[in-house]
Amino acid sequence: MTIDVALSELTPLLKRVHALGLVGELLGWDEQVMLPPGGADQRAAQHAAVAEATHAAASAARVGELLASLEARAAELTFDQRTIVRHARKDYDRATKLPADFVREKAAQGSRGYHAWAKAKAADDFASYAPVLEKNLELAQREAAYLGRGAAPYDAMLDKFDPGLTAVAVEKLFSELKRDLVPLVRAITASPVAERARAINAKLRGFPIDGQREFLREVTAALGFDYACGRIDVSLHPFCSGTGGDVRMTTRFNADAPLDALFSSIHETGHGLYEQGLAKEHLGTALGVHAGMAGHESQSRLWENQVARSRGFWRHFEPRWRATFPAQSAAFSSDELYLAVNAVEPTLIRVDADEVTYNLHIVLRFELEKKLFSGELAVRDLPAAWRAVSRELVGLEPSNDREGVLQDVHWSDGAFGYFPSYCLGNMIAAQLWYRVLELRPALEEEFARGDFSWLLGWLRENIHTQGRRYSALELVQRVTGTPLSPQPLVRYLRERYGAIYLR
Amino acid sequence: MTIDVALSELTPLLKRVHALGLVGELLGWDEQVMLPPGGADQRAAQHAAVAEATHAAASAARVGELLASLEARAAELTFDQRTIVRHARKDYDRATKLPADFVREKAAQGSRGYHAWAKAKAADDFASYAPVLEKNLELAQREAAYLGRGAAPYDAMLDKFDPGLTAVAVEKLFSELKRDLVPLVRAITASPVAERARAINAKLRGFPIDGQREFLREVTAALGFDYACGRIDVSLHPFCSGTGGDVRMTTRFNADAPLDALFSSIHETGHGLYEQGLAKEHLGTALGVHAGMAGHESQSRLWENQVARSRGFWRHFEPRWRATFPAQSAAFSSDELYLAVNAVEPTLIRVDADEVTYNLHIVLRFELEKKLFSGELAVRDLPAAWRAVSRELVGLEPSNDREGVLQDVHWSDGAFGYFPSYCLGNMIAAQLWYRVLELRPALEEEFARGDFSWLLGWLRENIHTQGRRYSALELVQRVTGTPLSPQPLVRYLRERYGAIYLR
Repeated sequence: MTIDVALSELTPLLKRVHALGLVGELLGWDEQVMLPPGGADQRAAQHAAVAEATHAAASAARVGELLASLEARAAELTFDQRTIVRHARKDYDRATKLPADFVREKAAQGSRGYHAWAKAKAADDFASYAPVLEKNLELAQREAAYLGRGAAPYDAMLDKFDPGLTAVAVEKLFSELKRDLVPLVRAITASPVAERARAINAKLRGFPIDGQREFLREVTAALGFDYACGRIDVSLHPFCSGTGGDVRMTTRFNADAPLDALFSSIHETGHGLYEQGLAKEHLGTALGVHAGMAGHESQSRLWENQVARSRGFWRHFEPRWRATFPAQSAAFSSDELYLAVNAVEPTLIRVDADEVTYNLHIVLRFELEKKLFSGELAVRDLPAAWRAVSRELVGLEPSNDREGVLQDVHWSDGAFGYFPSYCLGNMIAAQLWYRVLELRPALEEEFARGDFSWLLGWLRENIHTQGRRYSALELVQRVTGTPLSPQPLVRYLRERYGAIYLR
Repeated sequence: MTIDVALSELTPLLKRVHALGLVGELLGWDEQVMLPPGGADQRAAQHAAVAEATHAAASAARVGELLASLEARAAELTFDQRTIVRHARKDYDRATKLPADFVREKAAQGSRGYHAWAKAKAADDFASYAPVLEKNLELAQREAAYLGRGAAPYDAMLDKFDPGLTAVAVEKLFSELKRDLVPLVRAITASPVAERARAINAKLRGFPIDGQREFLREVTAALGFDYACGRIDVSLHPFCSGTGGDVRMTTRFNADAPLDALFSSIHETGHGLYEQGLAKEHLGTALGVHAGMAGHESQSRLWENQVARSRGFWRHFEPRWRATFPAQSAAFSSDELYLAVNAVEPTLIRVDADEVTYNLHIVLRFELEKKLFSGELAVRDLPAAWRAVSRELVGLEPSNDREGVLQDVHWSDGAFGYFPSYCLGNMIAAQLWYRVLELRPALEEEFARGDFSWLLGWLRENIHTQGRRYSALELVQRVTGTPLSPQPLVRYLRERYGAIYLR
């Protein structure tokens, strides 16, 4: 079989798996946005049926045969062809090496785990949740063993979300970040300006939802989100799903927190622009799929933080904001608005954290995850360890486990290794940002004119259309000329927040 | 294997097929209600992938083995078990007896056919469409042959939509209906009242969409539609999809035709009440699936016509209608409103037809379909035949094929045998209605108090929860004590419309 023949048979098989995956995503979107409450049981059965069909398609013997025949001629493959085959192999192994019984057990445990977590969190009862977490850890170890990564089970977790990522690499980046970031956060939060920022935010009240909706639609469209290839709706927790020509973002509105819906929408717009920017003809192969969660998060963070918290951005949008909310906005000066947009306040809760301290919440989770997997830390000792690391990094100690180890859902369904993506995304965003400013020093002037097209075009070319050809770390190295480092993030936080808080 | 063991293995397999079918329906709902235009290609790929997965689940060898083992002990099966096995066999045969190549060819032809029809209709060019229709007929004949119904191919078409229905049975019902209905329609449309009804309808203008939405939600909820187990949205053409705890209706709004959205919503509510009323624990087997399209249409028609065009209904809702539209409603007396609700006007276009003449549009299509399948009528002679039968039945002759043979989409994708369901549904609705009035003579008084619960309860018990235990014709016989007849429909139309038009 020639390479072309094999690939022309393999590609539609891969695209079919991808299409079924998107159907699963749509079921999830619909569940959170549209589904009437009475439909929950039926939806669970639909999810299960689609997951089973997806697995059958992903593990079809013919996929394995075609991959083997292509791998036998690896030396003759082009770079793009090797990319497709390498990732298809990984997906195929994941689909075929995990026994069906194990997959079922893990799914059942994920569902049990979620409910056990929700109950434990409501009752602030870590002890009832500890056995679930131990079981989740055990399943993760077994999963790593099935995939031939038994010696490095935590790396197997990281690799699921960010192909090629290792704990050693993350450890190196995070310890350097921690060293520089902890004192910066301390200095900022001790500044009298922090108190003023909080006071201004507390005054942002009574912004009509219709106006918020209209304004965020204008903003996200101006950034480049194509509403002919996507939508925005309301859900309890904001998220972005879908890809290509059908990207769906969600947000939520609160009349007394108008910047929340706006910035969560801009964040999801960053994810959405990545998905809309993938090479449409390659959707479903590794040439048309995002590079991993760290890369994804870099896009959402870049637009949310570097772009939308900048002075240039607000030079353009402030007049529009005032026109949309003439009565409510009158109480705020331009400087006050800018300060509200860049407020810093340490909190125990990750999802409430500002851009600066957020990273420390992630370092905390990574350190604990790593120790759980190495056996250095036992599940029963987790709450105490959480309190200690929280005090050390965030500067606050939770008074109960609801504000501590029980706050996040991720571990409850076994999603270990996901947290680092968030912070790596921030690092990548900052490093891309300084590269962009080298190429285009007056970029903020373009923002001030409402023009975001150069930036989007550059990201399209250098990130979005690259698909999965490079891992996130390789991509950063290629695009910026240097390996990923925490220093651009530290520099960016010092420059932007230093100028506001440490003058 | 015991019967219980076989059934306990078979049931989840059948429910999985059903769940995948519902996923396909959701993809369709989403496509018409939510999908951004850029997502069309991806959606087509998703439809194809889900259809393939559904077919694989429906034709799984294990289903066949379990059915064979249950059929071998048919004498020991309970009535309900026989019902499940009988319909599962039919579905399994349909999934396995049609060769994959044929299914693919038919799907491709359906898509080609739709586009050819849309083009031909726009250009009023039947000649370009004739070869497609001939091909569709040929495919239908082949399908019937694969299913062992080659001697009665049109019956095989009818049976797809209404299990057990035959052309002979339909022919008998329709010829009797035609005999009585044609003169009735002539008399009504010659009445001076018909002109007045048209004039009133022409004055119903400028009803705000928000008010229409609010009013129809109140009405449909009062009839019994459970919005915790369903929703209503907007689409180009109204429809109802989903089942059980997740039933989704759509409507469309026009400020200058306020009764359209209302009555289309009530029609879809009738479908929705049926789906919400199926036995939830049996969803996915024949005990928890509707009895066929005629039965389904009987429910939508009963609520739309017998109930919502009655004086009792409007005694309750007219004050609410006036409160919702105080300015617009002031121009109409109660009698004028009632007349507008029951306007009769012959039209060439089926979907625009009133309740009385609608049936004649269906008889027309049935007569032509039957002759196409028997070979008595060639496709090339169809336009002329359409004109002749339209003149005879509807009393109007189309001046072009767009208003004639090209008006409906159904035949373009091979959906022969569907049309009769519409008219049979009207007959069943009327026959159920008179049975209901025997049991509950003062039913309209309950409507006048806004109480529709007895009627819904009766339908739940006698129709909805029966699932597929009986064919539509059997069900009518059981519930009303007499075989299905056109006479109740004729009586109902004479009584209601005679009172208005022929006094």
